[in-house]
Amino acid sequence: MGTGEGSSCSCSCSEEEERLLKLESIRESLVRQEDTIIFSLIERAKYPINSPLYDNNHTHNLPTNTNSLFHFFLKQSEHLQAKAGRYTSPEENAFFPDNLPIPLLPPLNCTPVLHPPGDSININDQVLNLYLNTLLPLIAAKGDDGNYAVTAASDVNCLQALSRRIHFGKFVAEVKFRDAPADYTPAICAKDRESLMKLLTFQSVEEGIKKRVEKKAMIFGQDVDLNENDIDGKYKVNPSVVSQLYGEWVMPLTKFVQVEYLLRRLD
Amino acid sequence: MGTGEGSSCSCSCSEEEERLLKLESIRESLVRQEDTIIFSLIERAKYPINSPLYDNNHTHNLPTNTNSLFHFFLKQSEHLQAKAGRYTSPEENAFFPDNLPIPLLPPLNCTPVLHPPGDSININDQVLNLYLNTLLPLIAAKGDDGNYAVTAASDVNCLQALSRRIHFGKFVAEVKFRDAPADYTPAICAKDRESLMKLLTFQSVEEGIKKRVEKKAMIFGQDVDLNENDIDGKYKVNPSVVSQLYGEWVMPLTKFVQVEYLLRRLD
Repeated sequence: MGTGEGSSCSCSCSEEEERLLKLESIRESLVRQEDTIIFSLIERAKYPINSPLYDNNHTHNLPTNTNSLFHFFLKQSEHLQAKAGRYTSPEENAFFPDNLPIPLLPPLNCTPVLHPPGDSININDQVLNLYLNTLLPLIAAKGDDGNYAVTAASDVNCLQALSRRIHFGKFVAEVKFRDAPADYTPAICAKDRESLMKLLTFQSVEEGIKKRVEKKAMIFGQDVDLNENDIDGKYKVNPSVVSQLYGEWVMPLTKFVQVEYLLRRLD
Repeated sequence: MGTGEGSSCSCSCSEEEERLLKLESIRESLVRQEDTIIFSLIERAKYPINSPLYDNNHTHNLPTNTNSLFHFFLKQSEHLQAKAGRYTSPEENAFFPDNLPIPLLPPLNCTPVLHPPGDSININDQVLNLYLNTLLPLIAAKGDDGNYAVTAASDVNCLQALSRRIHFGKFVAEVKFRDAPADYTPAICAKDRESLMKLLTFQSVEEGIKKRVEKKAMIFGQDVDLNENDIDGKYKVNPSVVSQLYGEWVMPLTKFVQVEYLLRRLD
């Protein structure tokens, strides 16, 4: 139990630690996160691109040092969520981690689950760039309906879901290292990224994940009708884009996080 | 096209007006909103109740006049979304509509779609009460995992989806009135709520909607596995709760909004 002075919840630190350090529960979480990611993409696809939201020159009423309305919205969302304690969780990584406000409720004093030098890995700049410049044009129709607030809120959901999934690589790496440190130590000492990447790559598992997320995109993105059980082939997000997202970006970036984490594991 | 001075988007006001005043496109939107509502409930069900989030006495670091961390989070979320222009849309109704900040981008100067006296109807206090006290205990497991920020963000998604659906009654009522004013005028003049409710009630349609949302909850809330096509009967949110949500609360509250709107339609 969280019995520390100022502990804010009745959850169990040791249970939480156990959950994050068991390969089976990590796998379950990754599978569940697929649903979250696909739901969030389907929701974003309700709106067109709405490019003025991301336009650097469009937003003359914004505070200085703010690139776009979306930049402002994401940063302010993170500020609010930081106050509610979001970034005290090792599962969460901010897109704008500097100068976040302290939580209004005192955090639990749990033993850190991750090795501290690896805990701070944050590749959200890559996630943000990938999302805005590559993924968004693949899932949102061209156009501008002016609904910038709902679009931005929807983007934040997508980004946070993708970021959480990709940075889960830290937990995967920690567990794999604890299970078999001798397998990884030589490559870590030699700073041999390529060998580490090979140790972390299982082609057939990755193919299975790509197929599963494609199937999920079909199931969750279909138009459900009472009278028909057959799928009419119209999906709210193209299932092959979701498969591509996992194959080309989500899994490679998760492995990149794993490699970076392992390289710091003996520091 | 949005050609007004200070117009912030290239979307079309007249297209938007048309969309909101055609019964067929309203119906399509309501069907699509079912997916949004069910996705949001499935996502909220990932976390336990986390009651300290809603606890009035738990949050000694919060600003005065703030009842709970959740109260603070919802209010601040609305402030941020107001800055991004959320509440300039007639589809959106705030839970804390007083003293919202003005949008950072200038709004479009569209002709109001709704009759002004009815536009201001807001029953979000009922929606919030229903959600926190009745729905949440039916979809979230008992317990406290301390993840208050992600839980609160998830609650906001649920509440906004439910609020939008229920207040869509305004558009339904406006379209029905425009299509056949003579059908409604006598009951409106007589302030006869009961007759209006009868005119707006189609039992067989409502039964169909309840069945469809139950089916959607089964499809979206199943565990999708590559090797199995059969549903194992385990769902992330109980499909009968979703059917109950629609039958007992969403549809009655939408009709309540319709009746209130019609009563003001001749003002």
